[in-house]
Parts: sequence; structure tokens; C-alpha cells
Amino acid sequence: MGRKRISIRNPQSQIPNRYMEHLKKLIREVPDFPKAGINFYDITTLLKDADGLKQTIDALADQFKGERIDTVIGVESRGFIFAAPLAYHLGAGFVPVRKPKKLPAEKVSVSYDLEYGQDTLEMHKDAVGEGHRVLIVDDLLATGGTAKAVVDLVEGLGGKIVGLSFLVELTFLNGRAKFDGYDVRALLTYND
Amino acid sequence: MGRKRISIRNPQSQIPNRYMEHLKKLIREVPDFPKAGINFYDITTLLKDADGLKQTIDALADQFKGERIDTVIGVESRGFIFAAPLAYHLGAGFVPVRKPKKLPAEKVSVSYDLEYGQDTLEMHKDAVGEGHRVLIVDDLLATGGTAKAVVDLVEGLGGKIVGLSFLVELTFLNGRAKFDGYDVRALLTYND
Repeated sequence: MGRKRISIRNPQSQIPNRYMEHLKKLIREVPDFPKAGINFYDITTLLKDADGLKQTIDALADQFKGERIDTVIGVESRGFIFAAPLAYHLGAGFVPVRKPKKLPAEKVSVSYDLEYGQDTLEMHKDAVGEGHRVLIVDDLLATGGTAKAVVDLVEGLGGKIVGLSFLVELTFLNGRAKFDGYDVRALLTYND
Repeated sequence: MGRKRISIRNPQSQIPNRYMEHLKKLIREVPDFPKAGINFYDITTLLKDADGLKQTIDALADQFKGERIDTVIGVESRGFIFAAPLAYHLGAGFVPVRKPKKLPAEKVSVSYDLEYGQDTLEMHKDAVGEGHRVLIVDDLLATGGTAKAVVDLVEGLGGKIVGLSFLVELTFLNGRAKFDGYDVRALLTYND
């Protein structure tokens, strides 16, 4: 069968670059959304492609292969789209972190700063227990404010963060700097 | 090994009743949420249970085994939690139906009546094409208004509804009556 193919790996995402380029082609770029000057990476065109969806979930799961994970946390609402199949695939439970007033039982909440104003996220108090091994999942790592808030929620309940998993990382915003000592993975990176 | 165990089946959900009872035990009932007099079925306690999540997704997928499905549609945001793993499991694409102003590209939208006022949902215009075979997924079938709006969106784009899949059906609200001629499945039913 000839020589083994050598794949060049991206040190951050640890998946082959050729693979990353294939998935990137399925993402639609929408200029000036949600406001002028912002280039929006629209993941719905990737999600609607059956092979693209399967490859994405498999690749996200591969990044934490061999780790014991009790709980996969998804951040409302695009994070749900990746976190739920990952939980299913990894044989873990799924826990939603939601916007205020959505969860019905006893909750913990965290507020964090946005560019203008503040935002709040909530999680059920009994969703994560002492020593539970947790993977946090969202579609996008931008400035990292949301994910940092979720880390605080989980650790406040005694959970152990196995890692943070993102489909897309906007590296020029350097959100990764907020997670020194954590295992942060992104499948696709954009430098501008 | 003795006789084969005979399982009594629920004619609507077509899964064994004992199985349904097991999953129901994982659902938390929260009285008076979101307002007095409403008994809220909290699915987060089912989702956080790794076995419960796996059994739920597998059972939902089983109900449409053998059908060709191109696209699984999830309704924001709890619908995403079931639709995305179902799409992954069935080898289909995933399409989100979202609240207004969330989707970045060209959209179709539908408005429908609530108890007080109206609500609107949107979908990308290129998300479903002529003849695409679509499964609509949400967590809850109550009066059926939301799901009916999604049926209208999909059919307006030329999509063919293979079926509608719900985790929970509140049978006393008779939402099913809105879907004469459609294949409507619910895993768990509550009569009050």
C-alpha cells in the first residue's frame, strides 16, 4: 500500500490542517452581521451538511479521547447543538447553561461583562457535583467572557474542568489568555 | 432462559411501556413553573443522566428507523438538544429554526398565535430544498402551535415532512389534532 500518509497537524487543534480546511469551506461568511464591520462565521451551512456535521462531532470528540468525562455542558443556545451530540457520543450526561428565568429548579448564577453592559447565565445547582469531570462546549471562542463565567459556575459547585471545546476560535481576540492552565481546544481557527 | 418476555407497547410511541416509565422517573416535576398552576416537566434531570440521554436519543431515532431523512430540524432552544444528536445518529444534516434576528443569511419567517400575543420563528431560506426529507424535532408537544409553524416553514420551501418527533407529549392539550396525516411520535406522554 506504499508509505503512510503524513498529516501536518495544527498544534492548537491537533487535527490535520487539510481536514480543518475542508470543514472551513462549509462555513458561510456573512459580512456586516450582526452589525457593520463584523464578519460573521455562519455555522448553519456546516450543520446542514450531513457529512460535515458527522466529521465535526467526531473530531471534537477525538480531542478528548481517553479522558473520563461525566458531564458535557452546553451554553445556550448554539452551544447546545455541539454539546448534546458530544455528550451522546462520549457516553456522558448533558447539562445546559441557560439564560435567566429558563431553568425551573434551584439554580446558581453568574454575571459577566459584555462590551456594553452585563449578561447573566444560570445552571441548576444539582447539575454538577463535587469532583464531577466536566467538558464545557460552545460554538465560538471570542473574548472568552462567556466560557470563563461557565468555568466559575462549574468550579463553584466543585466540578473539575477536564477541558473546553469550541468549534471556532477567533485567535486575534486572544480569549485563550483567560484559561491559563486549562485544556482549551478549537477545531477551526480564524486569524482575522 | 425461559419464555421470551412480552413487552406491552404504547400504540402512540411504539416503545415498551416499562422503558417509558424508566425515562419518566428521570424527569423532575416542578409545580407552579413558570407560573402558578402549571406543572413543569423538567427534562434537565433526564439529560444529565448519561444512560438516560443515550436511551432517549436511541429511542427517538428508533421511531424513524428505515426512513430516509435528509435533514433534522430543531426548534430553538430545547429542541436543539434532541435534534442535533438525532441528526448525528441518523446521518442527516441539522437545521435550526430560531427566534427572530439570530440567523445571518436570507430567511423565511412565520408568525403564530400564543395564549397572549404572537411569536415568530425564522429559518434560512437555503436550509431546506425541494423534496428534502425532513424530520421536525422538539422537546415538547403541547398545543402544537410552534410545531405547526415549523411545518408551514418547511413545506413553504418545498420540503417533505417525514415526521415530527417529541420527547414529551401533553395529551390532554390535544396538539396532535393539528397534524392530521402526519407521522407524529412522542416518547413520553402525560395525561394531566
